[in-house]
Amino acid sequence: MEHLDTVPRPWPLRAARTGPLPADHPLAWLDGAAERRSRAGLTRRTVPRPPSEGLLDLAGNDYLGLMRHPRVVEAAAEAARTWGAGSGGSRLVTGDTELHGELERELAAFHGSEAALVFSSGYTANLAMVTALAAPTADEAEPPLVVCDQYNHASLIDATRLAKAAGSRVTVFPHGDADRAAGLLSGGAGRRLLLSDTVFSVDGDLTDVSSLAEVARTHRAALLLDDAHGLGVVGPGGRGAAGADLGGADDVVVSVTLSKSLGAQGGAVLGSRRVIRHLVETARTFVFDTGLAPAAAGAALAALRVLRAEPERAEAVRSRARELSEGLRARGLSASAPDAAVVSVLAPSPEAAVDWRAACLADGVRVGCFRPPSVPDGRSRLRLTASATLDNTDIRRVLDVITTNRPG
Amino acid sequence: MEHLDTVPRPWPLRAARTGPLPADHPLAWLDGAAERRSRAGLTRRTVPRPPSEGLLDLAGNDYLGLMRHPRVVEAAAEAARTWGAGSGGSRLVTGDTELHGELERELAAFHGSEAALVFSSGYTANLAMVTALAAPTADEAEPPLVVCDQYNHASLIDATRLAKAAGSRVTVFPHGDADRAAGLLSGGAGRRLLLSDTVFSVDGDLTDVSSLAEVARTHRAALLLDDAHGLGVVGPGGRGAAGADLGGADDVVVSVTLSKSLGAQGGAVLGSRRVIRHLVETARTFVFDTGLAPAAAGAALAALRVLRAEPERAEAVRSRARELSEGLRARGLSASAPDAAVVSVLAPSPEAAVDWRAACLADGVRVGCFRPPSVPDGRSRLRLTASATLDNTDIRRVLDVITTNRPG
Repeated sequence: MEHLDTVPRPWPLRAARTGPLPADHPLAWLDGAAERRSRAGLTRRTVPRPPSEGLLDLAGNDYLGLMRHPRVVEAAAEAARTWGAGSGGSRLVTGDTELHGELERELAAFHGSEAALVFSSGYTANLAMVTALAAPTADEAEPPLVVCDQYNHASLIDATRLAKAAGSRVTVFPHGDADRAAGLLSGGAGRRLLLSDTVFSVDGDLTDVSSLAEVARTHRAALLLDDAHGLGVVGPGGRGAAGADLGGADDVVVSVTLSKSLGAQGGAVLGSRRVIRHLVETARTFVFDTGLAPAAAGAALAALRVLRAEPERAEAVRSRARELSEGLRARGLSASAPDAAVVSVLAPSPEAAVDWRAACLADGVRVGCFRPPSVPDGRSRLRLTASATLDNTDIRRVLDVITTNRPG
Repeated sequence: MEHLDTVPRPWPLRAARTGPLPADHPLAWLDGAAERRSRAGLTRRTVPRPPSEGLLDLAGNDYLGLMRHPRVVEAAAEAARTWGAGSGGSRLVTGDTELHGELERELAAFHGSEAALVFSSGYTANLAMVTALAAPTADEAEPPLVVCDQYNHASLIDATRLAKAAGSRVTVFPHGDADRAAGLLSGGAGRRLLLSDTVFSVDGDLTDVSSLAEVARTHRAALLLDDAHGLGVVGPGGRGAAGADLGGADDVVVSVTLSKSLGAQGGAVLGSRRVIRHLVETARTFVFDTGLAPAAAGAALAALRVLRAEPERAEAVRSRARELSEGLRARGLSASAPDAAVVSVLAPSPEAAVDWRAACLADGVRVGCFRPPSVPDGRSRLRLTASATLDNTDIRRVLDVITTNRPG
């Protein structure tokens, strides 16, 4: 590529620019976009944490306290030693190991499903579930209809955008409104899918899964549920929002993550064997992605076994969330009543939410902070996630720190 | 959810069906789709491998033999112990660790870029790079134009589908044809992006990156390259296809994977600080995905350090690929001339490719096998990937096994 040195360049190579880019530079628009985000109070940045911080973390998704559980950590290390640091390729080529199969069998059995398929992230699991099941097939006269809750997770929304690009029809119903979902499903002659989170990640509310299932059955729709924040937290023994009654139904497909309650990385889709076979053969984020790293698969499997042996962890996290919510309300704050592990506390503005969060962190309590576009305008908030490992002293400290630092 | 038991169900819950589904079941269409794939010879399945197989693996992407390198494996184990089995959340919430930052700084320095951003997979890295940079912004009168090589990886294609859904224009040029790319870029008044793999995964050919760069500069387009199969294999010391001349250019953005040459899991985007800032603040697969697991980040970092200390690994893998290609041609087979680690060998049909691959595996040599829709009709082939760790005896054995088992 030496001859590149003779190609005229309007800007120098490798010189780190300190000023703005020339107006005709193809990425000059980035500065304006950053400026607009900054003016809107929407600047975001990563803040690397050290291994140990000596603070209470109510921002993460390690609901059951398994991310650092000795058996989970040792399973990650052992899997890397046994299988290597990576899987080596697509699961359809050389990236499939007996460890992946073992994890899939135990996940399916725990959930009450016939089969499971593991992905490198929850994002790619959701893309696979929706695009593989919602895309039109060669012999369909009518395009499939996908009916979606308006607050579905970003990964489900991206998945429906891909389904729409493939020719499917996508419509959205107001959050949690099963009647409106039914109305949307009643039109059209093609096949139908109903798509919803179970526990919604921002507010932490649990949708009425029974009503959605009833609507789906009445209208002969497949029900696709994202149970990322339900697995390990809700349902008997943490089986999740669908696990109790719907986990084995062959008209229901459920996605979960391995990175929240199970403390590792990755995602999975749970369903009938015919659904899983379809995903293996057609889902692009399965076929064309490297298989999940053995360390993550091993850690998730160990975490699942801990949860099965200690089902009280699921009840503990829900109790802790209720105590946080009740304590915050008793102190005059606008806290959500939690259905699962998430408690949100409204803030007066995006800037106030950011400052509130920073003040709590300075006092040793990390909480999350959601602003647009993660949440609608006017709904900026602190977001607290309970963990099964919080004790009474921890809860009191969290309540004190949040209350002391409340805005103006 | 007990009342579900009173909801009329056309089919029983949990009963594992052995026969076909009723015609009005919402997933009954899956059986027909499976039947069509089967008739077309396109059935795929996962085949779990044990930890140790005693065979030569020329199907994976562990080009440098680092997936099981003791320092890489131990770094994975140590990272899990130090940081936990997962990252615990989005990098913007609590999932960002000093380990992620260390990996990003060393990746950027190795590549010659200002900055880097690590993702949970190469798939999500590509979705982020393209959607964040190709989507229209609020103040643009004309939609951005994205010009793509027809053989780009599935993840880039999905990314452009998302960009198109957001309002961008997407056009495709014949594989490797920089003149046609130039023609497409010359139209329109909006900003422009040129998008291509460097080493194409199926045939293993290296596109003419210099010509693409020249075309992009002439037409004031940003150049976005997927160097998944280039990092660690091509360029000086394995810096990749863009690293030598373009790695530091602020009009070039490059994605790589951590799951191939670096033997771990994940992906990364390399570019200027303003590009990386834009991705941190706007890329949905960064904002809404759990951060890469510490074990994968630690393993990738250790692998990168091995590559820097032993740059001859990159040259070794290219030499081994050339020896495989030359040996196969000398034996009368239609093998590609490799630009990187991949050698493809044409098969007469999808079924013959499958049988050929199975016969090689029975003789102790695992090779890949690509059929439609991964490759166009009539281009089914064996796909061999060289590794730096193959010795002369290995190469002879591979050549013998492939030749002995050639179809008809």
